[in-house]
Amino acid sequence: MPSSPASEVLTFADIENAAQVLKGIAVVTPVLESPLLNAALGFRLRIKAEPLQITGSFKFRGAYNAISRIPQDKRAAGVVAFSSGNHAQGVAAAASLLGLPSVILMPKDAPKTKVELTKAWGAEVVTFDRFTESREELGAKLREERGATLIKPYDDPLIMAGQGTLAAEAVRTCAAEGWTPDIFISPCGGGGLIAGCSTSVRALSPDTAVYSAEPAGFDDTARSLAANKRLANDPAARSICDALLAPEPGELTFAVNSERLTGGLCVTDDEAMTAMAVAFKYLKLVVEPGGAVALAAAITGKVDCKGKNVLVVCSGGNADAEIYAEALKRPLPF
Amino acid sequence: MPSSPASEVLTFADIENAAQVLKGIAVVTPVLESPLLNAALGFRLRIKAEPLQITGSFKFRGAYNAISRIPQDKRAAGVVAFSSGNHAQGVAAAASLLGLPSVILMPKDAPKTKVELTKAWGAEVVTFDRFTESREELGAKLREERGATLIKPYDDPLIMAGQGTLAAEAVRTCAAEGWTPDIFISPCGGGGLIAGCSTSVRALSPDTAVYSAEPAGFDDTARSLAANKRLANDPAARSICDALLAPEPGELTFAVNSERLTGGLCVTDDEAMTAMAVAFKYLKLVVEPGGAVALAAAITGKVDCKGKNVLVVCSGGNADAEIYAEALKRPLPF
Repeated sequence: MPSSPASEVLTFADIENAAQVLKGIAVVTPVLESPLLNAALGFRLRIKAEPLQITGSFKFRGAYNAISRIPQDKRAAGVVAFSSGNHAQGVAAAASLLGLPSVILMPKDAPKTKVELTKAWGAEVVTFDRFTESREELGAKLREERGATLIKPYDDPLIMAGQGTLAAEAVRTCAAEGWTPDIFISPCGGGGLIAGCSTSVRALSPDTAVYSAEPAGFDDTARSLAANKRLANDPAARSICDALLAPEPGELTFAVNSERLTGGLCVTDDEAMTAMAVAFKYLKLVVEPGGAVALAAAITGKVDCKGKNVLVVCSGGNADAEIYAEALKRPLPF
Repeated sequence: MPSSPASEVLTFADIENAAQVLKGIAVVTPVLESPLLNAALGFRLRIKAEPLQITGSFKFRGAYNAISRIPQDKRAAGVVAFSSGNHAQGVAAAASLLGLPSVILMPKDAPKTKVELTKAWGAEVVTFDRFTESREELGAKLREERGATLIKPYDDPLIMAGQGTLAAEAVRTCAAEGWTPDIFISPCGGGGLIAGCSTSVRALSPDTAVYSAEPAGFDDTARSLAANKRLANDPAARSICDALLAPEPGELTFAVNSERLTGGLCVTDDEAMTAMAVAFKYLKLVVEPGGAVALAAAITGKVDCKGKNVLVVCSGGNADAEIYAEALKRPLPF
């Protein structure tokens, strides 16, 4: 890859290094497919199933990669992170497996399941109001008080590299069967997952179009890509996709994404919920709202998929039972 | 294996032959695990995830194995099967992939999802009342009228051999990681799945204890094993585990199971529903009531699992949304 702002932040070699660190630790999640769903859609859709990852989402990959690099003399002070839940669990689990203490800042409205599972991994959980308090300031304060290492949710090359391992796995699994995606779509919050994934896909399958998928009201990456500069979301915006509510693209993630993405797609909360019900019926996979936006973008034709080979990431499955039951009430399009 | 009634019905060589037939056709489903669930249980529990099989259950394996052996001159007349839904889908999908027509007899109270998905695979569906009509008689009549080949749900060595491939895969996957199960538990209806699985486990891991799991009221295999003869269920019995409502053990399956099983376990509908909720929370896997009985038996300690290595089969995930939402309302034990 030629030198560029993106290649100064993240290269495929970084992802290969992360894959070595994660080998035997992270789950090599399967690529799923439903012949009946393909027939209904009119294209071949394959799904990288990250709900089957160790903490129920891809976030474990980046967290473990980042925490494993903390120098020995910094380990006893532990790590601190802020997260609505999936990064929280990823950091808590990775810290636990690596023997470091962790403290996690979680928004008060985070799904109960996510808070409970984060605590179960042994983390200390501190809550905050996501609409009136700055999680960055709270995180910095905790970091100073304890000397703990901050594990950012996305704007860190080690995090992006860890997340990118999932696309490398998926593309290689498909290639081994002689199948190449024409289109790759991944959920996008702060942009760490799609930054890592786009780097892997560009390296391994350069002709594949790569799209981010975001919930309506939080389509900052789609709009920023179109404007070629970072744009923030309206602070008044709300979405059921709790995993994807970053205020704006990360500085480093956008440096990568502005160069490596084909474009950004956007789905409504209703479309994300319908995609959850589709995954229940055809894939038997539990997907949370934010984890389902790429699947939603594919099945609602936000980019023309007809006759194409389409690979989407379902990025997490830590849904509260109430929300999940609500999603299953939806009438399905097929 | 020495000659015996069981070895005259089914040998591990039959299962290896079925595995060759299924290679590249059936999904090699993953073995899942949750470190948090293990910590809560006090033993290491691994789950063979057959809801991720091509038709959402293990039944595709046996059906494809049996249908692929139908002689050329019998193929045009197609196949007939009777099933509450998982065998129906397995037969419909296998027939469709092999280019044969299929007609399926389904009980009127089969889950809507199962009927719909069976039709989606191209099968003709004929319904009957499971408590007042004999599915065997209806099946025989259809077979005579059309000249179609009857694909039995369990009492056929080719069916048992196909189902047994899943345990061979699971035990070998675990062995490759240096892990051997002390206890293996699989759901049991007519006994085809556990007959195939017990044959695989006995061949590959002879020190592993092998148990069937059944719903209360349909514990015919457990009682028959204890009595050393085939005993039927009370025709008045009812269970939410629609996949496991066979009237009594099969003649051939019981010849295998009476020799190769350690014993039979039994769980209540309520315990099966709780296991579905546990699989939702910790595994992100959609499991139907009948598919969850082995998991239920393990987590409720129907056999003492403390400190042991336990491998269970979750055999299917074709749950109706209403039942599933009901299962998720349960308070969990952990």
